Amino acid sequence: MTPVPVEAERSLRSVAVNRNPFVVPGFRVAAVSSGMRYKDRLDLALIAVDPELNARAAGVFTTNRFCAAPVLVCRENLKSARTKAVIINAGIANACTGEEGYKRAREMARIAADALDFSQREILVCSTGVIGLQVELEPILRVMPELVENLKPDGWGDAARAILTTDTVPKLASTKIELSGKTVTIGGMVKGSGMIAPNMATLIGLVCTDAAIQPAILDHWLRWGTARSFNCITVDGDTSTNDSLVAMASGRAGNPIITDIGSTESRAFGEALQAVLLDLAKLVVMDGEGATKYIEIHVTGAPDRDAARAIALTIANSPLVKTAFFGEDANWGRIIAAAGRAGAPLMPDKAALFFDDLCVFRNGTPVAGTEVEARASQIFKQKEIRVQLDLGAGSTHFTAYTCDFSYDYVKINASYRS
Amino acid sequence: MTPVPVEAERSLRSVAVNRNPFVVPGFRVAAVSSGMRYKDRLDLALIAVDPELNARAAGVFTTNRFCAAPVLVCRENLKSARTKAVIINAGIANACTGEEGYKRAREMARIAADALDFSQREILVCSTGVIGLQVELEPILRVMPELVENLKPDGWGDAARAILTTDTVPKLASTKIELSGKTVTIGGMVKGSGMIAPNMATLIGLVCTDAAIQPAILDHWLRWGTARSFNCITVDGDTSTNDSLVAMASGRAGNPIITDIGSTESRAFGEALQAVLLDLAKLVVMDGEGATKYIEIHVTGAPDRDAARAIALTIANSPLVKTAFFGEDANWGRIIAAAGRAGAPLMPDKAALFFDDLCVFRNGTPVAGTEVEARASQIFKQKEIRVQLDLGAGSTHFTAYTCDFSYDYVKINASYRS
Repeated sequence: MTPVPVEAERSLRSVAVNRNPFVVPGFRVAAVSSGMRYKDRLDLALIAVDPELNARAAGVFTTNRFCAAPVLVCRENLKSARTKAVIINAGIANACTGEEGYKRAREMARIAADALDFSQREILVCSTGVIGLQVELEPILRVMPELVENLKPDGWGDAARAILTTDTVPKLASTKIELSGKTVTIGGMVKGSGMIAPNMATLIGLVCTDAAIQPAILDHWLRWGTARSFNCITVDGDTSTNDSLVAMASGRAGNPIITDIGSTESRAFGEALQAVLLDLAKLVVMDGEGATKYIEIHVTGAPDRDAARAIALTIANSPLVKTAFFGEDANWGRIIAAAGRAGAPLMPDKAALFFDDLCVFRNGTPVAGTEVEARASQIFKQKEIRVQLDLGAGSTHFTAYTCDFSYDYVKINASYRS
Repeated sequence: MTPVPVEAERSLRSVAVNRNPFVVPGFRVAAVSSGMRYKDRLDLALIAVDPELNARAAGVFTTNRFCAAPVLVCRENLKSARTKAVIINAGIANACTGEEGYKRAREMARIAADALDFSQREILVCSTGVIGLQVELEPILRVMPELVENLKPDGWGDAARAILTTDTVPKLASTKIELSGKTVTIGGMVKGSGMIAPNMATLIGLVCTDAAIQPAILDHWLRWGTARSFNCITVDGDTSTNDSLVAMASGRAGNPIITDIGSTESRAFGEALQAVLLDLAKLVVMDGEGATKYIEIHVTGAPDRDAARAIALTIANSPLVKTAFFGEDANWGRIIAAAGRAGAPLMPDKAALFFDDLCVFRNGTPVAGTEVEARASQIFKQKEIRVQLDLGAGSTHFTAYTCDFSYDYVKINASYRS
């Protein structure tokens, strides 16, 4: 028995994404050390559109009811027609900080606006770190001149380092496509390593492009792409108070502005944006707190996307499944048990489970044999593991991206705040 | 600010439950070592009603779509008017074993029935352990004469040990109440330590009583009590393929048979049964895989029970919350963040969070002060911690019972099957 082909991501295969440093025409980037909470490391980033340009921006934010102050400020300021810059601090999340926190988030925007000679409404603010502490404005005020002075087109590497918290590596991805004869760049950075779950994560992401595109269409593709990238990943099932993913378009590429959502150029842009978002999302999972393995859970043959999604994410979030991956134990029974409790329709006798191309379960029973056991054990020793559960009940699929659950996950999270 | 009183369990305070060995008149119990998978330990238990009696039985079972073969046999055999015995093996779950597994589960019932001189339909079967292996019938056949010969009224301690898998301690609870001038005993045992979540757990539970009660009323109180005990606990959010909770009533106490569900006797029985079930459920959480702390999450002031339940269980299942408990880090922010993503209505400014009686969060912000921090840290060093989140939005409550998430949870589950 061979696995059913997965149609997922087919459209993306033509989009080559790379993880090297990049430049997005029309944007300058910088990072400094403010010393607000971390010592001797970059912790404050600024991404600004060139002064003569007006960026179009869109954002998707946490669904957590306790949403953080900077998220409120972003939502407000995105109503403005123009966005000029984003300021991001790491170490203090400015979440659960009440009216004072809201004032300080606006003040962060104002400080950046003053230094750049823009208005407060043209600045977006993101914060990540510990919940419940107020951001300190004095360190930001003090380093702002240096931050603005450092702005440069190739500052993305520094910025990607500045926004990290428990992450171990900076995360960058970019691609180039042709739109109406012009070369367009889409490049972005992300942070996130724990409190990662669908409906965003403790995730701060920023994607910039030099494409000319209407804000409503940028917003559409950002949401479409998020549903097919960041909302497919999970590290620990927790959704943060601060999740923010912002996209900005400078228009510097000089392509005719995209005004028709259904046009070839619009679709090409949307797919390229998703390719970058998915690559950034995978980088988050690969750097999951304590992760030693990268795992894709493909649920195929589903009657509908909701069923496929529920089953894929239930498997991806199961602590028993995740610890089995860590232990390199090809424990298919836990995967089947997780699928069975997902609350989605599922006919045990129709389902088939694969590790890579190896069928380990079908017709309601395991595929017997010491050879199967041996091959499954080998697959579980890999750094990257592909699981496919075919439900045999339709033609819809969903892929969840996750990592294993290790001693280090516990270690990192038992001691993070202290 | 002081916490809102929790009304939960008020009715149960008059029911004294103890965890010592007990005898339930009308039942005899035994355990032996079959050697089927474990060596040199008890792994097969039999609980039989006295031959001249007919027990009334009821059961609640897993909601997992991949339900194990013995669960199918129990559901079938509970349709019979009489139940004479329950046979339980530990080590092999007989789950995902197809038609052959179903045949073997029935055969387990038949072997026990033959030895006891009952019919196969009068026997219930429970299995717990590894998924995907077939139970071996030869070891059961071989030890069955010894098992029947060992049956005795005070065999519960042995039986409670025989059904364990990753549990570290046997779990027994019992109580006595007066019904119509007769003393009635309710006593039970349970196993379960991982793959524990609402809608049952990898949990095998058996509660026996000598009350005389109609099966439909026993079934009602078993479901009512389960909703208020086993369905309020979680260790890791996983729901097993084998969860089974069975209640049997021998009628030996000689009380007038309970036929009116609304009678004083019926209610007294229901509350006493729930007290025993809740105590058994707490024992499961306390023995949660790798658990170092016992935690109660009380959500009060909720608009309805569904909202309270969703929030309490989201907090109780959050790996970030559970690792913070393990790290003795009074990280209220993770509790608030988990509450906010539960998908239930919640007004951040109305909510108040307490550790024991200490208010740490209200009006959308933390309660400041080094004294509060110091007291919270002290509370988190306790072995038992009480968390209360008052939503300020109604008068309904729900309590979830859980444990922390330690290195040992990962260790146990990264290596269980091997």
